[in-house]
Amino acid sequence: MTDQQTICAISTAPGMGAIAIIRLSGHETFSMIDRIFRPAAKKTALKLQKANTIVYGTIIKEGAVLDEVLVSIFKAPHSFTGEDTIEIACHGSVFVQQTLLQLLIEQGARMAKPGEFTQRAFLNGKMDLAQSEAVADVIAAASASAHRIALQQMRGGISKEIQQLRQQLLTFTSLIELELDFSEEDVSFANRDELFKLCNNIHHLINRLSKSFQLGNALKNGVPVTIIGDTNVGKSTLLNALLNEDKAIVSDIAGTTRDVIEDVVIIEGIQFRFIDTAGIRATNDTIENMGIERSYQKIAQSDIVLTMVDASRSLNDIIIFLTSMSDKLHEKKSALIINKIDIAPKEQIEELMSLGEEMQLPVILLSAKGKTNMDQLINFLIHSVQSGTYNDNDVLVSNVRHYESLKNAGAAIERVLDGMQLSISGDFLSQDIRECLYYLGEITGEISTDEVLGNIFKNFCIGK
Amino acid sequence: MTDQQTICAISTAPGMGAIAIIRLSGHETFSMIDRIFRPAAKKTALKLQKANTIVYGTIIKEGAVLDEVLVSIFKAPHSFTGEDTIEIACHGSVFVQQTLLQLLIEQGARMAKPGEFTQRAFLNGKMDLAQSEAVADVIAAASASAHRIALQQMRGGISKEIQQLRQQLLTFTSLIELELDFSEEDVSFANRDELFKLCNNIHHLINRLSKSFQLGNALKNGVPVTIIGDTNVGKSTLLNALLNEDKAIVSDIAGTTRDVIEDVVIIEGIQFRFIDTAGIRATNDTIENMGIERSYQKIAQSDIVLTMVDASRSLNDIIIFLTSMSDKLHEKKSALIINKIDIAPKEQIEELMSLGEEMQLPVILLSAKGKTNMDQLINFLIHSVQSGTYNDNDVLVSNVRHYESLKNAGAAIERVLDGMQLSISGDFLSQDIRECLYYLGEITGEISTDEVLGNIFKNFCIGK
Repeated sequence: MTDQQTICAISTAPGMGAIAIIRLSGHETFSMIDRIFRPAAKKTALKLQKANTIVYGTIIKEGAVLDEVLVSIFKAPHSFTGEDTIEIACHGSVFVQQTLLQLLIEQGARMAKPGEFTQRAFLNGKMDLAQSEAVADVIAAASASAHRIALQQMRGGISKEIQQLRQQLLTFTSLIELELDFSEEDVSFANRDELFKLCNNIHHLINRLSKSFQLGNALKNGVPVTIIGDTNVGKSTLLNALLNEDKAIVSDIAGTTRDVIEDVVIIEGIQFRFIDTAGIRATNDTIENMGIERSYQKIAQSDIVLTMVDASRSLNDIIIFLTSMSDKLHEKKSALIINKIDIAPKEQIEELMSLGEEMQLPVILLSAKGKTNMDQLINFLIHSVQSGTYNDNDVLVSNVRHYESLKNAGAAIERVLDGMQLSISGDFLSQDIRECLYYLGEITGEISTDEVLGNIFKNFCIGK
Repeated sequence: MTDQQTICAISTAPGMGAIAIIRLSGHETFSMIDRIFRPAAKKTALKLQKANTIVYGTIIKEGAVLDEVLVSIFKAPHSFTGEDTIEIACHGSVFVQQTLLQLLIEQGARMAKPGEFTQRAFLNGKMDLAQSEAVADVIAAASASAHRIALQQMRGGISKEIQQLRQQLLTFTSLIELELDFSEEDVSFANRDELFKLCNNIHHLINRLSKSFQLGNALKNGVPVTIIGDTNVGKSTLLNALLNEDKAIVSDIAGTTRDVIEDVVIIEGIQFRFIDTAGIRATNDTIENMGIERSYQKIAQSDIVLTMVDASRSLNDIIIFLTSMSDKLHEKKSALIINKIDIAPKEQIEELMSLGEEMQLPVILLSAKGKTNMDQLINFLIHSVQSGTYNDNDVLVSNVRHYESLKNAGAAIERVLDGMQLSISGDFLSQDIRECLYYLGEITGEISTDEVLGNIFKNFCIGK
């Protein structure tokens, strides 16, 4: 699927900078650069210079100096791509970048496709597919937690777990398939009890990884937090207060598909997507009910739900609202936000607090306008994300492709477990185990197709 | 004016890329990086590793891996700044770039000011002031010719010429000042004939450099071309045709102050600024005359003037127009563009051609709409720029500051020449020679003030 032609690309961000890096990788890297580069000191061809060194000199175009550059030398297989590679650090003018790129193309290189350097790293066995995919995630990560998950994956986190599972399964499936060869003799090389135990362990591990996807995906793309409440209870004021907190950074990430009513805020390294909803209240109006129905859907899609009330309003209305909401909050991390405590009567605040306790919701007394108790809300949010069963070092699945493969692998291993309990024959077992192996192999790229690779790398930036 | 603190900055273009480079320079470079960097292979401190090598490893923040990076090692004085310097090539996410920068600042580095790396290179004697200034020009250059001038200056073009002049003058002024020490004895160490000859040569050289400013500045900022002609003779069509030529690239350079009626086109590596003018015709209307006055000013500011007529119009009107223009075109590179030759009567075209010859203007027959003879126009433009007395390798002055210093140095050397013809005494001569030396020294930075340096480097980008 990829040819062996030497490829080149600008690897630094587009536009003018102090320095730009142009990368060249492939068999002909050194013969190409040696034709256009004159070292300032030693008059040695770059291919004869030591790997991992930097050579200062000039790029020559049509007999004239195009630029003074630094060339970093990497030699196969000890480079990112596994091929001979150089990185030219030139002056960061757009003119120099474009002209240098053109000059390399004139030497026979071709423009790299998006992610092609990483794709070559994968094809040359420098990293597996899950690691390769994570390279793009590392570059796109906008928050500390998204970065941590991506970096962990790039450094082989999920690969290690998957490969261990696969290896154990492979051993067993070989034994079972050996039995099939001796089927007339009715031998049993694979200890069924041990196999059952292993499959059970694998089932648990796949389940754990699958389940981690919800958090992993949320941390990667932003943890969805729905704020529900009647109109004018202070939802916008709350969002503004969060945006203005010193701890919070407003993030405007290019490429993130954002609903108009979403606000992205990074708090203590975690990206939250705050989803404002239409005001919810008991009504007989059909159209208004449709709006409320959409709000319910938002709640269902969220990890965290903040139910917000205006403590200064009629207690009766608040109670009706909270009663209508109570059955929507099952299995959600939810808190009751009692806002406007600075202007509400003290007794009513106390009644609302009791109400929250009855509903078994944590209660946060807030004045969003006066920024009172904002730290309590922030603690609740951070705690809600971190209170899962995951530690900082646990592998979290954040990639939809991995999640789907895990789901399929999980279904296959369940069939193995069911089959074993029904004592089905080895060849049927073997078939399901092979299927499980196949789906696990998809994640790390032992199993891959051109189409899968194409889909993965097309979303990379050029130059990586 | 600069402290000795270790400085850091992102040196690649802002935003997300495959790779970003963060640069760290100063005494504490290695102690800072060694606190946060773990090499993958050799566990040697970076300061003990060889200069001009690249080390692969991880950046550690609060015990966890922040990123996998390549660190390039440069040691004082053999670095761009002349100080210990490292360049960290990290993953190009904005998060990684910002976090890494923050980590370096936590180690005691401070953010570099615009151009501060280059300023240190100047202060550490790695390059003179004219060369330092050219670094920013190289990065900003948008056309081949602007790039060539900037690169030549960065590589010491103008510095070499200035320093030669200065050195010769210094020798003479020492001799003259020696005479003053022996003034009672009325000796003459400095041969006046030779001094006069030298000053004359210097005068010529300064003049040549000063004169080159017009072209140098035009090539740097775009060669101004005014198009004059009555309304609807086809000026816009001509501009569009130029923009659509394969050879021409429309350039929209950020930061270029553009008049609304200017169009920037790069043709064969030269940037032209086409200035459209109000229609010019003989009139008694005061207000219209004011517009025409502005057009005359544009002509005065231009290097090249294209006088454009619509060959299909009344011959009498065209003649009146051309007659009114003829005295405005003195000392301009000017051509008569006879447009709409596809629809004009043949006889009239011939009459206009004779008229052009009478006015001693090159004539270009054009159909801007049909793109006929566009190559002739392009040749005229390119030739007008290159037909000066300058070769590709000649030093061109493109910097206003240098131009002003040259002007002042020229005035001083003229006083020396005048004084010598009047046989004024050595101490007066010496004073003017010293002044000339001073202004020449301003260019290369032997003479500089904090204010001058501040003005120069504030226009640099951060990270250079």
